[in-house]
Formats: sequence, C-alpha cells, structure tokens
Amino acid sequence: MQTVIIGSGNVAFHLAKAFVLNKIPLTQIFGRNEKELNKISTELNIPYSTENLNEADLYIICVSDNSVEDISGIITEKDCLVAHTSGSLPKEILMGKYRKSSFYPLQTFSKSKAMDYSKIPFFIEAENEQDRKILFNIASQISKNVMESTYEKRKYIHLTAVFACNFVNHLFARAKEISDSQEIPFDYFLPLIDETVQKIYEIDPKSAQTGPAVRNDKRVLELHEQLLNGESLEIYKTMNLSIKKMYHLP
Amino acid sequence: MQTVIIGSGNVAFHLAKAFVLNKIPLTQIFGRNEKELNKISTELNIPYSTENLNEADLYIICVSDNSVEDISGIITEKDCLVAHTSGSLPKEILMGKYRKSSFYPLQTFSKSKAMDYSKIPFFIEAENEQDRKILFNIASQISKNVMESTYEKRKYIHLTAVFACNFVNHLFARAKEISDSQEIPFDYFLPLIDETVQKIYEIDPKSAQTGPAVRNDKRVLELHEQLLNGESLEIYKTMNLSIKKMYHLP
Repeated sequence: MQTVIIGSGNVAFHLAKAFVLNKIPLTQIFGRNEKELNKISTELNIPYSTENLNEADLYIICVSDNSVEDISGIITEKDCLVAHTSGSLPKEILMGKYRKSSFYPLQTFSKSKAMDYSKIPFFIEAENEQDRKILFNIASQISKNVMESTYEKRKYIHLTAVFACNFVNHLFARAKEISDSQEIPFDYFLPLIDETVQKIYEIDPKSAQTGPAVRNDKRVLELHEQLLNGESLEIYKTMNLSIKKMYHLP
Repeated sequence: MQTVIIGSGNVAFHLAKAFVLNKIPLTQIFGRNEKELNKISTELNIPYSTENLNEADLYIICVSDNSVEDISGIITEKDCLVAHTSGSLPKEILMGKYRKSSFYPLQTFSKSKAMDYSKIPFFIEAENEQDRKILFNIASQISKNVMESTYEKRKYIHLTAVFACNFVNHLFARAKEISDSQEIPFDYFLPLIDETVQKIYEIDPKSAQTGPAVRNDKRVLELHEQLLNGESLEIYKTMNLSIKKMYHLP
C-alpha cells in the first residue's frame, strides 16, 4: 500500500517517525514548508515534495485544523482513502470524491521531544468496514491502544485533552512565572508534579484534591490573592471557585 | 533526641512514616482524632495520645493551617524546638516561649498512596544555627533535597505549588467529568498526561504549549465553548484568555 503524509509540523513529523520505526512503508511527505520537509526527509529518509503530490492508496493529512479543508482539495484521485488527524473536525470536512476518514492520535507532540508511540491511543472513523480495517491495521502496528470513535465522541475526547494537557501545561507555565519571579528553581516542583500525576493512576482526581481551596482555608486564599495579579490572579479565582462548587463548599 | 509529631492527617501520617522508614526515633504522635491516631499508631508502631503530650526536644506540628496557632499553645515547655509544616504561615504564629521554626515538605500527601520520600524537597527556617542544624539533620535523613527558606519565599513556594499541583489536579477532575459524561474512559488520557509532564523535564513549559488557544484556532475554541457549561466553561474561558495574553495573540 502506498501511503503519503501531508504536513510538516509536529504531528506529521512524529507520525512519519512512528511509521519508519515500525517499518510501515511511507512513499512521500508532502507540504508547503520546504525547510521543515527537508529536515524531516533527511532525518527519516523519506522523499518529500512541495509541488508534486504522489499517487497513493492512503493520504494522512497532518496540518492545523484551519488548513485541513483547503489542503484536502489538492487530492484529485477518487480511488483512495484520505484521513485527517484532527480531534475537532468531522471526516466530511475533507473536500474530494475519495473515501473519507479520521485517524486521531491522542497525544501532545513537540518536535524536539522523543516519545514512546506504543502508548498513544488512536481513534479511528471510516465510511466502511474495509477502510476501518486499513486504518486499524496501521495504527495497531504503532500502538496497543486503537479504538473506533465517532465525530461526536472525538470532539469530547479532544476537549478533555485540552483540560488534561494544554491547560495543565499552561498552569505549569504560570507556576514557573511565579517561581521565577522569586528566583526559586522550578525543578523543586517536579517531584510534586510527578506525584500529582502518579496519584491519579490510583485515586480518582476528585478524591485526590488537596490544597487551600478544598480545605476552604480563607486566610491562605486571601494571602495568595495578595501575592498575585493579572492573568494568574484570574486563574486563581476561577479555579478556586470551581473547586468550591465541585465540593459544595460554603 | 525526643521528637513528637502533633496531628493525625495526611502530613502527620507520611512524616511519621518517613521517620520510621529512616529509623529516626519518634516518641509519640499526639492529636485529637483518636480513630486516625490509632490507625497510624498501629501501622507504624508509635505510641499515641489524645490527652497527655510527652515532653520532647522537638515537636513537629502537622495540622491544618487554621489549627496551628491554637494547637501550638498546648506546648508549655520552654526549652524545646517547635516546627510547623505549613507553607503559608510564619514561624511566629507558634504561641509559646519555646524556639520556633518551620519544617515545610513540598509534596502532596494522600493517606492511601505510598510515596518516595527521598525526593521531597524540605524547606527549613529556624531562629538560630543550632536549630537549623537539628532540622537539616532530620530532613536530610529523609530527603536529598533540603534547603533553607524564609517565610517570604515559602509563601511563593506554596503558591507555585497550588498552581502546579492543586489546580492541575482540579483540571484532571474537571477533565474526567467531561470524559465521564461521554462514557470515555479517563485512562485513555493517562499517556497524554504523562507526556505533558515528561515534556517539562526537557522543555520550558512556555515553549511546550500546544492546543487550540496557542494556535489561536477560533473555530475550535467556539466549538469547545458550545460543549461546555458552568464552572468548566469559566475555566475554559479564563485559561484561554491567559494563554492569549502570555503569547501576545490578537
């Protein structure tokens, strides 16, 4: 089977790398950013092009949500399967006469960070059983965690991931801003962060909640508000109010 | 040296356990909650009392911030060292004629969860060099990470921990609420959460940010807002605004 990856960002790079590591043939990486494509191509030894899209049986589109629709139009073949990798788009966004599908890896990708692909959950949606099998077969060579998912469900998976990953990372960024301001090394907080995550492998996060808000410790809450300003203060208030509501505190 | 731990909550239990595991003598656990004290006493084989506080050289008060001041008054000895374990109280909150100090373990404790004490940073403050040495000596038997810290700094350490731990856990709880509502197993998100944390060991969290907000993907942001309500919607808006400001997005 001839497979082409379209895109040159983090998802394209890591998916291409997962293909190469698992010896799944990949005939081309296609995209607009020649500099990035060249880097990926050199590292993974896969041909690339910015102009001539190869004919293929499967195209996997790994571009930002905003560009999926546009770029999907460049595939003029009809007898092929096209998948996008977005958590927040229906497969019908794809603009062509080919078979449409979704191939969604639930993970956060940074180019500079090596990762274990075998643990990444893949969520698959296709028009028919045969296409589903094609995508399941590929995903199963990369990961142990492959599931079917409708668009309705995928939206919520993505939304959950935004809370559990994107927002969590932003809290780390705001936390580091606070510790940096006092010249406290952020490394001190890594064991605490590790433990916070380890806990939820064993305890429901709702039961694992600690801190001044769930203790309803008004003195500390006021003290902290005095130390904060700007966006961090807004986050502090919003999170505390949400904790208050979740635990029905007075 | 005779040491007594005062309290029967998560911190008291884990600190007592760390003492026992590292063969640091502990003569008594003292507190109000007989049921909890009895459990700790049985598990760790340390005498407990709810009425007669032993004479000791060192008392470590492990109670909630609200109760530190009150309970510190029960120590009537003068020639002893008393430490509290709060991140948000000055050592002067302690009400007695003894030497006052702070012995602050930066960690999140749940009774039901075993943990590696050797990685917990301890922050110490004392009135004089000798007391500092006593507390350093004890903390160093438990952990490799023992540092001095003033109250001014400790307040910010605690505040950073609230963002990096308490609020992160609350995001997990809200994320699970969303995935539960769609019958999506929360376990699917654990590899993503692990990766989110692993990343910040290698990349500054500000540089590691991914997701629709930092991409300024208005379609997804609007879609997500439609899926949310109540406190989770408030968190969603506040976090996105904060991301927008941090990255100077239009």
